[in-house]
Amino acid sequence: MSKEITSRKEDYAQWYNDLVIKGGLADYSAVRGCMVIKPYGFALWEEMRDQLDQMFKDTGHENAYFPLFIPKSFLSREAAHVAGFAKECAVVTHYRLKNDPDGSGIIVDPEAKLEEELIVRPTSETIIWNTYRTWIQSYRDLPLLINQWANVVRWEMRTRLFLRTTEFLWQEGHTAHANAEEAIAEARQMLDVYTDFVEHYMALPVIRGVKTESERFAGAIDTYCIETLMQDGKALQAGTSHFLGQNFAKAFDVKFSDKQNKLDYVWATSWGVSTRLVGALVMAHSDDEGLILPPRIAPVQVVIIPIYKGDEKKDLLDARGKEIAAGLKKAGIRVKFDNNDNNRPGWKFAEYEKKGVPLRIALGLRDLENNTVEIARRDTREKKNVQADGLTELVEKLLLEIQQDIYQKALEYRDQHITRADSWDEFVKLLDEKGGFISAHWDGTIASEEAIKEKLKATIRCIPLNNPLEEGLCIFSGKPSRERVLFARAY
Amino acid sequence: MSKEITSRKEDYAQWYNDLVIKGGLADYSAVRGCMVIKPYGFALWEEMRDQLDQMFKDTGHENAYFPLFIPKSFLSREAAHVAGFAKECAVVTHYRLKNDPDGSGIIVDPEAKLEEELIVRPTSETIIWNTYRTWIQSYRDLPLLINQWANVVRWEMRTRLFLRTTEFLWQEGHTAHANAEEAIAEARQMLDVYTDFVEHYMALPVIRGVKTESERFAGAIDTYCIETLMQDGKALQAGTSHFLGQNFAKAFDVKFSDKQNKLDYVWATSWGVSTRLVGALVMAHSDDEGLILPPRIAPVQVVIIPIYKGDEKKDLLDARGKEIAAGLKKAGIRVKFDNNDNNRPGWKFAEYEKKGVPLRIALGLRDLENNTVEIARRDTREKKNVQADGLTELVEKLLLEIQQDIYQKALEYRDQHITRADSWDEFVKLLDEKGGFISAHWDGTIASEEAIKEKLKATIRCIPLNNPLEEGLCIFSGKPSRERVLFARAY
Repeated sequence: MSKEITSRKEDYAQWYNDLVIKGGLADYSAVRGCMVIKPYGFALWEEMRDQLDQMFKDTGHENAYFPLFIPKSFLSREAAHVAGFAKECAVVTHYRLKNDPDGSGIIVDPEAKLEEELIVRPTSETIIWNTYRTWIQSYRDLPLLINQWANVVRWEMRTRLFLRTTEFLWQEGHTAHANAEEAIAEARQMLDVYTDFVEHYMALPVIRGVKTESERFAGAIDTYCIETLMQDGKALQAGTSHFLGQNFAKAFDVKFSDKQNKLDYVWATSWGVSTRLVGALVMAHSDDEGLILPPRIAPVQVVIIPIYKGDEKKDLLDARGKEIAAGLKKAGIRVKFDNNDNNRPGWKFAEYEKKGVPLRIALGLRDLENNTVEIARRDTREKKNVQADGLTELVEKLLLEIQQDIYQKALEYRDQHITRADSWDEFVKLLDEKGGFISAHWDGTIASEEAIKEKLKATIRCIPLNNPLEEGLCIFSGKPSRERVLFARAY
Repeated sequence: MSKEITSRKEDYAQWYNDLVIKGGLADYSAVRGCMVIKPYGFALWEEMRDQLDQMFKDTGHENAYFPLFIPKSFLSREAAHVAGFAKECAVVTHYRLKNDPDGSGIIVDPEAKLEEELIVRPTSETIIWNTYRTWIQSYRDLPLLINQWANVVRWEMRTRLFLRTTEFLWQEGHTAHANAEEAIAEARQMLDVYTDFVEHYMALPVIRGVKTESERFAGAIDTYCIETLMQDGKALQAGTSHFLGQNFAKAFDVKFSDKQNKLDYVWATSWGVSTRLVGALVMAHSDDEGLILPPRIAPVQVVIIPIYKGDEKKDLLDARGKEIAAGLKKAGIRVKFDNNDNNRPGWKFAEYEKKGVPLRIALGLRDLENNTVEIARRDTREKKNVQADGLTELVEKLLLEIQQDIYQKALEYRDQHITRADSWDEFVKLLDEKGGFISAHWDGTIASEEAIKEKLKATIRCIPLNNPLEEGLCIFSGKPSRERVLFARAY
C-alpha cells in the first residue's frame, strides 16, 4: 500500500488530488485556477488527442486555428450565448506596460487602453462564425467541417485539477451545413465518435442523451451529451455535441445561395471535449495504489525492470532487457526499459504502479538462466512467471484483456448504479446513500428541475436517446410525466 | 499565368500576401494583428510541427504545458528580460463582464478587478522557472528537458500574415542543467536540430551564427540563430536557441544540490521556432503562379486529376484514378484524387499550382488505352507522358529530386547573395541594389551597430559560427576590427 496516496474511503477528493500530483500528471501553478500539465500527464493527453484527431480526420474534418481573443461586442450578438458566456471571463483592457515613474517596478500604461476590450475565448462560436461569413457564399462551400485544438479560459471560482480549471485545453469542432437534417446528422455523428473514443480507448462506458433546456449549451437548439459515472457515484459529463440551428448564422449574417439560387442562413453544429477527460480517466479506473490506465491510451504500456544483485551480470541483464524492449517496440508496443541506477527495484515497482503502467516485466538473474520473465498486471496485480518465448504475443494478449477487463469493471459498476426511484423519499435516500444515476419521472418544467437542483444538488444529466415513453408522476411535483430522465449529482 | 497573384516584380509584398490568402493558408481576422490559419495552412504547420516534435523527442525532450497567464510581477524579476518583454503585451485586468445598467449591452464589471494584472505570455521563461523551483532539488532531477507547443502574444504595431502577428503559434524548449558546459551543448544541439529541419525538410539553407549583444534574447548570455535569405534579398531569422546562464535560476531562486551536496543555481537554455517559418517557406521558394512547397512537408504531395469528356468512361477514369491513388498511398505518399464535378480540369490545374502541390498526375481517356499518365512537376513546370507501370517508384524519385532541386536553387541564390564590402559606399550600394548578406568589418561596439541600423535599416544578422579571424577596419567607424560579420535588411 502506498503511504503517499490517501485511500478512497478516507477522502475521495484527496485521493484524486494525490493521484494527479503524485502520479506526475499535473501541478498547481502560480496563477489562480490554472494548472501545469506535467510531462506524464501531457503524454497521456497527447495519446488521447492524437486518437481523437485521427477520428475527426477520418470523418472528413480539417484543423484550423482562430484567434485567442474575441472582441467584447461579438459575445452580445447571440442572445442566449451572451447570457451563458459573458459572465466569468478574462478581459484584456490594455496592450502595454511601462516603468512605474516612482521606480518601483512596472505598471499598466494608462495610455494603452484598448478602444474595445478583448475577451480571452471561453469558446469560439462567435469569432468563427464571424469568419465563416466571408468563407461561405454558395452551397458549393458546404458542408464546412472544421476543428480547432486550442486553449480556452473560463474564470471559474472553484477549480480542481483537470476537472475544472480556469484555463484548459480542448478541441472545438465548428461545422456549417445547407440544411437542418445534415447539421443534426453531423452533431449525432460526433456524439458517436466521442462514444467510440470514450468507450473503446478510455474504457469508460457512457450514457448517450440529450440535455434539458436549462442544461443546454448557450445558443444551442439541442445539446447531445455522453455521461459517465465515477467511483464515488457522481456523474461526469465527458463530451457534448450541439445542434445550433441557424442561431449563429443569423447573429453573424452568414447566408448561402442554394442550387436554386435562393439565399438562406447556414445551419451549424459545434462539439468539444477537453483535458477534463484526463480527470475522468483518473477517477474512473484507479485504485488506492495509484493510477490504472487503459492500455490503448497509456503513454507507457509495458515497463521492464531489471533486478540487479550488485554488479553481478549487470551487463547481461541490461542486454537482455534491451532485447526484450526492442522486440516489443517492433510490434508497436510502447515500452520503457528502466535501468536507472539511482533507484532500487522496489521503488520502481511502486512508482510504475502509481503511474498506472498496465504491464510490468521484471527480469532477474534466474530468469536469464531459465529464459523466463515475471509479468504483472497493474489492474488485478496478478503476477506470474512465464517463458520468454512468445512474450510479444502474450503481452499483446494481456494488453487487450486488460483493456476489456477495465471496461467491463466500469460497466458493471455503472449498471449497478442506475436505479429507479418512484417516490421523493426513495429519490433522496438513493442520492444520499447509493449515488449513481437515478431514473425518475420529471414533469418537464424548469421549475421542478431547479427546485430539485437547489434542494439536493442533483441535476438532470440527460434524457437518454431512444428513451422509452412511460406514463408516470413527477418525482418532485407529482404532476403527469411522459418519461423517466436520469438524475445525478455531478462533477 | 495566374491573374489572381501579383507578380514579384510588380509588388513583392503584395505577391506574398496574395500567396498566403489565395493559396488558402491564412486570412485576416476581426482582431487587430491576429490571423486565422486556414485548413491548408494549418495542415502545412502540422507537417512541420509533427516533424519537429519527433526530432525533439528523439533528442530526449518531453512536452508539457504551462499557464497562458503570467503574473505581472514575474516579468520584473529578471532585469534584462523585463526590458525586452514587458512593453507591448496583452494585459488582463478584469475577470468578469456584466450587463450595462443602461441596457445597451455588456460592460466590464468594475468590481471584478484583479489584484495583480495578468500578462498573456509573450514567452514563458518566467512562469516555467517559477515552476522549476519546486521540481528541481538535486542533480538527480537534472537535466530537465521540456518543450511546450503554445500560443503566445506580443502586441506588434505592424503585422504581416505569418511573419509578424500579435498572436502566433510556436514551440518553446526550456531546459535545466547542472553546469554551463551541458547547457551550452544543449543550446548548440537544438541549433543543430533546427538547422537539420530547415535545410532538409523546408529545403532552405541557413547560416548558423551567434547574435550580437544588442540583438540577443532579453535575459540570455548567448543567442544562437539560423538566418535565411528570401527572394527579395532580405534576411529572415528562422529560429533561435539561447544559453541563459544562471539568470533565470537566480531570478526565481532555483538551486540544486550536486553530488558533493553543495548548493548551486541551475543552468538554463530556451529555444523556439514559430508559425513564422510558414511565412519563410512561402517567401523562399514560391513563384508568380503560386506556392512551391518542398515535398517532405507538403500536406498533399501528389494530386491526381481525371480529364473527363462528358460522361464517357467517367466510371473507368474514376476507378483508375482511385487505383493509382491507393497505390501511392500504400507507399506512404500523401496523395489526393480530385474528381469533384463542380470544377473543370483547367481550374484544378491552376488551383493546385497555386497551392504548391509538388506533383500533378493527369489521367485522360487515351491514358486508359495506353496505360500511361501525364506527370507534371510544380517547381519546374515540366510535364511528360510516362508508362503507368512503375509509377510509384517514379513518383518517389521525382519527389526526392524536387526536394533536392528546390534546396539547391535556394542555396545558389543564397550563395550568390553573400557579398563582401570594404568601404561604406560599397556597403550602401550593395544594400540598396543587390541586397542579401553583406560581409563587412565591424568594430564590435553597440554605437556603430546602432548607427548603421538607423541610417540604413540594416542589422547584424549574426556572427557566423567558426568565423575566421581577420584584421580589418570597421565599415562605419574605421576603427580596427578582428572579424567580418553579416549585415542585412531583414524581416
